[in-house]
Amino acid sequence: MRDFSRDHSALALNTASLGHNLEGHGAGWTTERVIEACAARGFGAMVYWRREIGARAVEIGDRTRAAGMEVAGLCRTPFLVGPYAEGRSAVLEDLHASIDMAAELGAPVLTSVVGGVIPGSHSMSESLKRVGEILAEAAPHAAACGVRIALEPLNPVYGGDRSCLVTVRDAIDLCAAIGHPAMAIAIDVYHVWWDLSLAAELKRAGAGRIVGYHLCDWLAETRDVLLDRGMMGDGVADLKAIRRAVEGAGYDGFCEVEIFSAENWWKRDPGEVLDTIVERFRTVC
Amino acid sequence: MRDFSRDHSALALNTASLGHNLEGHGAGWTTERVIEACAARGFGAMVYWRREIGARAVEIGDRTRAAGMEVAGLCRTPFLVGPYAEGRSAVLEDLHASIDMAAELGAPVLTSVVGGVIPGSHSMSESLKRVGEILAEAAPHAAACGVRIALEPLNPVYGGDRSCLVTVRDAIDLCAAIGHPAMAIAIDVYHVWWDLSLAAELKRAGAGRIVGYHLCDWLAETRDVLLDRGMMGDGVADLKAIRRAVEGAGYDGFCEVEIFSAENWWKRDPGEVLDTIVERFRTVC
Repeated sequence: MRDFSRDHSALALNTASLGHNLEGHGAGWTTERVIEACAARGFGAMVYWRREIGARAVEIGDRTRAAGMEVAGLCRTPFLVGPYAEGRSAVLEDLHASIDMAAELGAPVLTSVVGGVIPGSHSMSESLKRVGEILAEAAPHAAACGVRIALEPLNPVYGGDRSCLVTVRDAIDLCAAIGHPAMAIAIDVYHVWWDLSLAAELKRAGAGRIVGYHLCDWLAETRDVLLDRGMMGDGVADLKAIRRAVEGAGYDGFCEVEIFSAENWWKRDPGEVLDTIVERFRTVC
Repeated sequence: MRDFSRDHSALALNTASLGHNLEGHGAGWTTERVIEACAARGFGAMVYWRREIGARAVEIGDRTRAAGMEVAGLCRTPFLVGPYAEGRSAVLEDLHASIDMAAELGAPVLTSVVGGVIPGSHSMSESLKRVGEILAEAAPHAAACGVRIALEPLNPVYGGDRSCLVTVRDAIDLCAAIGHPAMAIAIDVYHVWWDLSLAAELKRAGAGRIVGYHLCDWLAETRDVLLDRGMMGDGVADLKAIRRAVEGAGYDGFCEVEIFSAENWWKRDPGEVLDTIVERFRTVC
C-alpha cells in the first residue's frame, strides 16, 4: 500500500468538495482560483463537473496542466435510465457530448451514474440490462476519444432514483456484459464502505478495470444521504482497509476527494477545506 | 411459489404498519382493536413491538390466539453495539428481558437490529464480531425459552448508526460464526430489494435458517429512509422475485407487512390500511 504520509502527489480534488457546483452553496470561487489554490498545496490532479466547464473545456484542461496538475476525470454522463433520464435518443446525444467534453478537457475518465430503476419495471435487472445496451452503443466513441467510462456503483439508498447499479459486484458484471475495453469502474468510499466483500470483488475486476478511487467518509448519524458526506476521519468507514482493497486489485492512480456537505464543509472557507483535505489525506486515508 | 391470490392466511401484520407504536402517529387504536380488525380480515398472525406490550405479554398472546391468529414474532432486541447501545451489562440484561417477553407472548421469533458501528472503531468487522459475542452469550437462554433470534440485515444506509449488519451474506456468516441453533435470519424487502445476489445467498443459508419475511416496498424517490416506506406495489422492488428467492431457500412461514410511513399510511384510517394490505398481498406480492 502506498505511503501518503509524506507525499500527497496522488491527491486529487473533485470540485464538488468546495460546493461551488451547486447554486447557493460554497464560496463561489472561479475555476481558475480553485486550480491555483490546489496547485499551491501540492494536489496532483483535478476532477471537474460538466456544469462548470461550459464551452471552456480545452482552456480549463490546459490551465490545469499549466499549473502542474493533471485532469483526472470529468463528472459525468447523463442518467441513462430511471425517473430522471430523458428519452433514449436524447440520452445518447448527451452521452456523446459528455464523452466529447472529457476528450477536450484531456480527462482520461468520464464517470457514469447510471440512473435508477426504469419506472414501471419493478426490476433492477431489466434496468441494468438497458444501461448496458446504451453504454455498448457509446463505448466505441469513448475509445476513439481516448476516454474510459467509469461505472460508479452508488450506495443502495439511491437504487430507486439515481442508480440501479449499487454494488461493485454488479458493476464488474455489467462491465463484463458490455465487453468493451473503454468500460471501467470507479470506487467511492461513500458508496462501498459497508461492503465486506469489496476486496474479493475487486480482485475479480482484474488489473486495469479500476480507474477511479473517491474519498470522503460516512458519518455515523448522517442527516442527508445526498449532501451530508463527512471529511475523511470523521465517519465510520475503514479508509485504510478500503484503499488496501483498491490497491490490492492493482489501482495506483489518483485518490479523489469528493465531499458533498451543504451544512458543514461547503460553508467553510475553501482554503481551510483544502488544508484539511491535505492533512487528512496524509494521516487517515 | 405459494399462490396467495385466493388465500391470504399467510399474511401477518406488524403493528408498526398502523403507526401506533410511535407517539403522535397513527390512529391510536388499542392492541385489542387491532387484533379484532386483523382477525376479521383473515390475517394469519400478528407481530408486536415491546413498547406496546408492557406487562401484558401473556394476555396479548392469548388474546391473539383466541382470535384465531398466531403471534409470529416480537420486535426486538436492544441495539447491541453502536452509538445507540448501552453498556454491555445493560445490553445483556435487556436482551434477556426481550427474550423473556417473546416467550411470554408465545412468539417463536425475536427480531434483532444489532446496532451500528462501534464509535471510534471505524470497523464494521470489529463491530460484527462484538455482536456475535453478545448473541453467543444470549443464544442458550433463547433456546431454553423456545425463541429464535432473527438477525435482520438492514439497508446499508443504516450501517453507521442502526445496524452494522447490512447484507444477507453477512447475516448468514454471522449465524455461522455464532454457531448456535437459536440463531436465524429475517429478510425484509426494504433492506434487501437492491441485492441481486439474494437468491444465491439465501440458498447458502440452508433450510430452517430463515424465520421471517417482511413486506413493504421501496419508493423510487423516498423522502425519508426511516419513515417513508411504500405499500407493496407502489415502489420499485421486484416483490415476486424476492419472495421466490426466500421460498426457494425453503421458507414457508408468514409474510409480515411492516410499513413505516409517517406522512402517508399512518395518517389514514387503519381499516383502509388493512384492507389495502390484504388486496396488495393477494395481487402483487
